[in-house]
Amino acid sequence: MSINWERQAQKGKDILTNSIPKQWLVAAEKLPPASQKSVVDFPRQSGLLSTRELIITDMSATSLVMEMGKGALTAEEVVTAFLKRAVIGHQLLNFATEFLTDEAIARARELDEYYRRTGKLVGPLHGVPISVKEHISMKNRTCNTGYVAWVDKVYTEDSLLLQLLTKAGAVFHVRTNQPQSLMHLCCSNNITGTTVNPHNRTLTPGGSSGGEGASMGFRCAPLGIGTDIGGSIRCPAAFCGAYGFRPSSMRNPCTGLKVASSGQETIHGVVGPMSSCSIEDLELFQRAVLEQEPWDIETSLMPVPWRSVAPTREMTVAIMWDDGCVRPHPPITRALRHARDKLVAAGIKVVDWEPYKHQHGWEVISALYYPDAAAKQRELLAESGEPARPLTEWALSYSRSNALSHAETWSLQEQREIYKDEYHALLKRRGVDFILSPTYSGVAAVMGESQYWNYTAIWNIADLPSAVFPSGLTVDSKLDALTEHDKKYIPRDAADEREWRKYQGPERYEGAPIGLQIAGRRFKDEETLAAAKLVEEIVSRRVDAKL
Amino acid sequence: MSINWERQAQKGKDILTNSIPKQWLVAAEKLPPASQKSVVDFPRQSGLLSTRELIITDMSATSLVMEMGKGALTAEEVVTAFLKRAVIGHQLLNFATEFLTDEAIARARELDEYYRRTGKLVGPLHGVPISVKEHISMKNRTCNTGYVAWVDKVYTEDSLLLQLLTKAGAVFHVRTNQPQSLMHLCCSNNITGTTVNPHNRTLTPGGSSGGEGASMGFRCAPLGIGTDIGGSIRCPAAFCGAYGFRPSSMRNPCTGLKVASSGQETIHGVVGPMSSCSIEDLELFQRAVLEQEPWDIETSLMPVPWRSVAPTREMTVAIMWDDGCVRPHPPITRALRHARDKLVAAGIKVVDWEPYKHQHGWEVISALYYPDAAAKQRELLAESGEPARPLTEWALSYSRSNALSHAETWSLQEQREIYKDEYHALLKRRGVDFILSPTYSGVAAVMGESQYWNYTAIWNIADLPSAVFPSGLTVDSKLDALTEHDKKYIPRDAADEREWRKYQGPERYEGAPIGLQIAGRRFKDEETLAAAKLVEEIVSRRVDAKL
Repeated sequence: MSINWERQAQKGKDILTNSIPKQWLVAAEKLPPASQKSVVDFPRQSGLLSTRELIITDMSATSLVMEMGKGALTAEEVVTAFLKRAVIGHQLLNFATEFLTDEAIARARELDEYYRRTGKLVGPLHGVPISVKEHISMKNRTCNTGYVAWVDKVYTEDSLLLQLLTKAGAVFHVRTNQPQSLMHLCCSNNITGTTVNPHNRTLTPGGSSGGEGASMGFRCAPLGIGTDIGGSIRCPAAFCGAYGFRPSSMRNPCTGLKVASSGQETIHGVVGPMSSCSIEDLELFQRAVLEQEPWDIETSLMPVPWRSVAPTREMTVAIMWDDGCVRPHPPITRALRHARDKLVAAGIKVVDWEPYKHQHGWEVISALYYPDAAAKQRELLAESGEPARPLTEWALSYSRSNALSHAETWSLQEQREIYKDEYHALLKRRGVDFILSPTYSGVAAVMGESQYWNYTAIWNIADLPSAVFPSGLTVDSKLDALTEHDKKYIPRDAADEREWRKYQGPERYEGAPIGLQIAGRRFKDEETLAAAKLVEEIVSRRVDAKL
Repeated sequence: MSINWERQAQKGKDILTNSIPKQWLVAAEKLPPASQKSVVDFPRQSGLLSTRELIITDMSATSLVMEMGKGALTAEEVVTAFLKRAVIGHQLLNFATEFLTDEAIARARELDEYYRRTGKLVGPLHGVPISVKEHISMKNRTCNTGYVAWVDKVYTEDSLLLQLLTKAGAVFHVRTNQPQSLMHLCCSNNITGTTVNPHNRTLTPGGSSGGEGASMGFRCAPLGIGTDIGGSIRCPAAFCGAYGFRPSSMRNPCTGLKVASSGQETIHGVVGPMSSCSIEDLELFQRAVLEQEPWDIETSLMPVPWRSVAPTREMTVAIMWDDGCVRPHPPITRALRHARDKLVAAGIKVVDWEPYKHQHGWEVISALYYPDAAAKQRELLAESGEPARPLTEWALSYSRSNALSHAETWSLQEQREIYKDEYHALLKRRGVDFILSPTYSGVAAVMGESQYWNYTAIWNIADLPSAVFPSGLTVDSKLDALTEHDKKYIPRDAADEREWRKYQGPERYEGAPIGLQIAGRRFKDEETLAAAKLVEEIVSRRVDAKL
């Protein structure tokens, strides 16, 4: 059995190995030593990219499109620059599952030809390289979703989302890694292995869109695509110092996403954008998708166009310091204090958010992840004989030992709806527009330790649009040391203790960026991104305290 | 056991009996004989209602509101007139489960007082009496959903829909009957018995909103509220010569509707309006509900306001003569021909509709009605010990003998989504805006015979908005006689044979109105009602052939 699964897994690994454009591979001796934790400065320091390539790969999608619209950049040079950076990134972080070099360059040339012929861009994402989480299926390519059993499963169609992005001008140049089962807040499987965090390679990039997290953190693409049913876009964005958006469910098209339990609707996962650069790019992505009216093809989506919303300071932001279950680590609390001070100084109304039954919310959503006692996942593991990774075991432990009956499932679904309605009513009653909170109990977790989902999963059950952005702060060996007061903290329960004990001190998390999460009211996706843009600008001091 | 359930059932019957306003009860000898089939002319012929009351009860909700707005009618006299007519209707049809006389009159007086004080109406449904299907729960009242086990279950809140309608000015004066389990296209339970059709009391009013069908057919209210998961609004509207609308799912609020399998989402039922008078009234209802943004309370609803859409002749109407499974009875085919001729004469583009895998659609939806092998329904029957009605047995026979596994359920859900998307794509590809079709294989079924759901259920799985309106024709003893050609019809299978054999000839269906159904594209609720209005006007000759 074990020989068997390893031979299967090798096929998936071969797809990756064979796809790497050899001309851009960096000789091992030119790479930083394995012991070097942060590699984010390597592209600049190594001299492997030209100045022009460094400038290009530092630009946002919005800026790239603008420059291509002026004829100042070609799609081909943009895609090539990001491909080169992605190859380096892959050597350092193991974030890719497949490079799409030839197709990406051919497509870029087509776009350039179109621009030369017409003087126009094909769409709002003309020439923008986008990295794509592997389980978003592509025509004539395998799609393994992190399962060895699926390594040679080939699909005949692009996912609907990719079709729309292609029409908008996007170029897909690299597919990215995900954990076995898709249900880890990390990125490790038995096919292409483990992805690491560009800011500190002893830390996880998060997950399940962990390859995307690394791709964004290392700027292997200005935009990426992740999926999120419990934090899988937001956690890697936060861990890697990037941006991510979990739209409301039933907004972005999910046709063609491959998951173990296809057709399951107990909790709706979403697909959404990640960005290396800005909230503005997340908005660009959303607009490009929704202006194509995907609900006219995937008819369960909400028929709601993307609205233009300007940021406003006339809002109330509530800060959730703690979810009442698991105490955030010192760097997170420091970033929230920093944000509070900045927002208050900028004249924003800031209040505290008292969490509403988050433990109950977690009990409902975690039971609804696996109503079948994870039978589908276990079947897929058994099919190849691959061993379960430790965090797969952890995630599967959320499920009860026996499948829920239909009656139990329906009762939980009813509780889910009640909780969602109650959370929305509470926001209205308290007059709160946005909740600023941790994305996770800590910064990027030490490999294997990312176990607490509920700072993100809570917005999946409440179905609140939520965006993650970097606070501009990173873990600080002095500011984030445990105080005497911290050391006396008495955890509320075993989970709180488990998470709190992990911190130990800032040393374990050297260089880790501190991301924050902002959630808006139900359906207020546009307002949430607009607010995130303003809040991020204020928090990271990029605008004056007063406009 | 049997004494027990009968004692329980009697409680429900007592609620009804005690609620009937005795002052308006008609002495038995003044009622038409039990053998008289049609009673629709009884209010006019009997002299029991004044001329003014007859005029009022013949008016549409739209007209009533207009007259109340001018001060030409009071809410109290409107509600009183409908209450009187409803009492007569109940004596003839057994359609009510509870009269709300005192509350309705008190509420009407409040509305009149408000109007006197301000010169304004409280809302778009000011003073409009609305009959309400029993399982739509009301504050401080029982709600049995057709189950003996629930006869003394009292609720503490009005359903959200009723709260919104109350704000819009509506007055609820009578609650109406439904079949045991809610899953019959007829209206018979062990509590308040069997409702009959006002046009022919040997026929069923349809179901499951059968009390509403009778209420509309006898004009016991200008508007009613039904629910529909397989045809339960549209079938009774068609059977009773009335109007009904199945909106897209996730549009009207369902919070507070009591069903056996609360929290089940395999197929989303909907709640929607029925009208005794006009499509315009259905639109009035929808606008009044959606302008209150129910999605801001029931947050899974689509955040889509009701749009104003004017009818247009620039449309393509496809006629579905037969669903490829069960051949419609002669009166239905005659009404479709009549409609086709009228529409063509009016310059509307009319084509034929080739049905798309309706048998497959039925297999998917019928399996998804009872993934638990109807365990919840059977439990509720067992709880009281009441016997299952024959059509309950019929409906439960759709379920397999064992509960579906989660994997099977998810696979069916996936097939449901694919089918829905494919049906929508087909409408677009064929350039068809609306499908005009039978609502049922025949006109109102003989009691106990309404077994074929798929002329309506197919639009539940495809989730197409669909409206029913009277063609203006009724069964004709000559025109609808079986022809020699008809007599030679060789049914396609057992279901087709079962349904075709029921017809026998027009005599069984004397006086039955012939309703037709029009379905629009996904999400085009507003366009569907606008088209239904125009089509109905053309088909029933109420407008000229050319505008």
